[in-house]
Amino acid sequence: MTDGGTAALQRQVDALTARVRELEDRQAITQLIASYGPAVDSMSAGVIAEQFAADGVYDAGGSDPYIGREAVAGLIHGDMHQGFVHAGCAHVLSLPVIDLDGDRATAVNHSRVYLHEGQGWRLARVSANRWRLRRRDRRWEVELRTNRLLDGDPAARALLVREQGSAGA
Amino acid sequence: MTDGGTAALQRQVDALTARVRELEDRQAITQLIASYGPAVDSMSAGVIAEQFAADGVYDAGGSDPYIGREAVAGLIHGDMHQGFVHAGCAHVLSLPVIDLDGDRATAVNHSRVYLHEGQGWRLARVSANRWRLRRRDRRWEVELRTNRLLDGDPAARALLVREQGSAGA
Amino acid sequence: MTDGGTAALQRQVDALTARVRELEDRQAITQLIASYGPAVDSMSAGVIAEQFAADGVYDAGGSDPYIGREAVAGLIHGDMHQGFVHAGCAHVLSLPVIDLDGDRATAVNHSRVYLHEGQGWRLARVSANRWRLRRRDRRWEVELRTNRLLDGDPAARALLVREQGSAGA
Repeated sequence: MTDGGTAALQRQVDALTARVRELEDRQAITQLIASYGPAVDSMSAGVIAEQFAADGVYDAGGSDPYIGREAVAGLIHGDMHQGFVHAGCAHVLSLPVIDLDGDRATAVNHSRVYLHEGQGWRLARVSANRWRLRRRDRRWEVELRTNRLLDGDPAARALLVREQGSAGA
Repeated sequence: MTDGGTAALQRQVDALTARVRELEDRQAITQLIASYGPAVDSMSAGVIAEQFAADGVYDAGGSDPYIGREAVAGLIHGDMHQGFVHAGCAHVLSLPVIDLDGDRATAVNHSRVYLHEGQGWRLARVSANRWRLRRRDRRWEVELRTNRLLDGDPAARALLVREQGSAGA
Repeated sequence: MTDGGTAALQRQVDALTARVRELEDRQAITQLIASYGPAVDSMSAGVIAEQFAADGVYDAGGSDPYIGREAVAGLIHGDMHQGFVHAGCAHVLSLPVIDLDGDRATAVNHSRVYLHEGQGWRLARVSANRWRLRRRDRRWEVELRTNRLLDGDPAARALLVREQGSAGA
């Protein structure tokens, strides 16, 4: 084995490491988004706060955006959310489509709020979501989540459009 | 370090590369399927066209199958889809179960169409899906997507049966 | 290239192998959970039996838990499930949030049962799920799945709380 052979092996390991890193990034972002629903339905404010950047914003439409991780996590204590939780609710986020760009990422997906009523459940919200995320140290955080009801509002469906050229990534 | 030691390392790197490749394939197929919903809800015909093989087929039941990527993407411009989008709709595809076989794959999952009506949303479609995919160059494409309403039709639930022996893969 | 250089490369390969193993574990657990819905909707009892440990338990509330993989898979032959399947139903499980701990794992997610009725579908069940899994040989199996309706029952939402300190994993 020459030094050249070992150098080739090092290059293979480096390339593989970059590929594993991308898989891990996609995995981490997917888990972050998937964990939102269980966290709000179980009133785990700390989990929500950890998902957002210190200055992260959640713009859910219909009122002023929640600015900063404490404000976002504070949603859980609001009258509307408390009413939903005690009636019985499920916030379910669909599998996100993720476009990675180094330490930044964009994701789009759907969310639904199922609310218990009478003997069944009704759909209280069906929304489009767009997430802007960044990696800080080794963790991904949400910088901006925008959520709009899919009630015919063109601004809601515009959230689901991916960037030019990203579809082949 | 002997040549034998370095050869052993090369074998480990090769085996790891194959495992990473499989993870990437599963990731790519999952993203492809997840991106269908946001694409149709935002009328991104180009994204749909890219998902299907040039001769790919979408058989949604109830009418002739759509044959070829242009025909599939053209669905978006149909009267029914336009009506859904302007009323407010969400096409949500569940996490697919994927059986990989080299450059070919089969996936099964559920899809739902939520349609805005009055003050809420109703379930316009709840379907079973079976996807046949192939890798062409470095991209995965849909060769055939079959979708049937889960309304008691035995043919719909048959789409969700996995191949013999695939459950342990 | 010195022996020290090759030893460093071996350490990199070992570290990468552990990272790939974790990605594979998460992938396998996600696929296991995703495959539950298609399996019950297509009455694939064998697939359900394979998911559970020989002594695995499914505690769905409202009746005694199903103990052992044969009992769990036998659910499919029950009158309620047969009625659902023939009317048309979809059991859809959301993306699980997974906390890995070596050969053990915990996952939480939502599940919904959509039931065909009249010209549409209604939500027959909207539930919280908590899964305790273990790796046996090279396969992951369910030791315990607990499912409770999200109808305001505090025990249901408690299933969605993650362990202390797991959010950053």
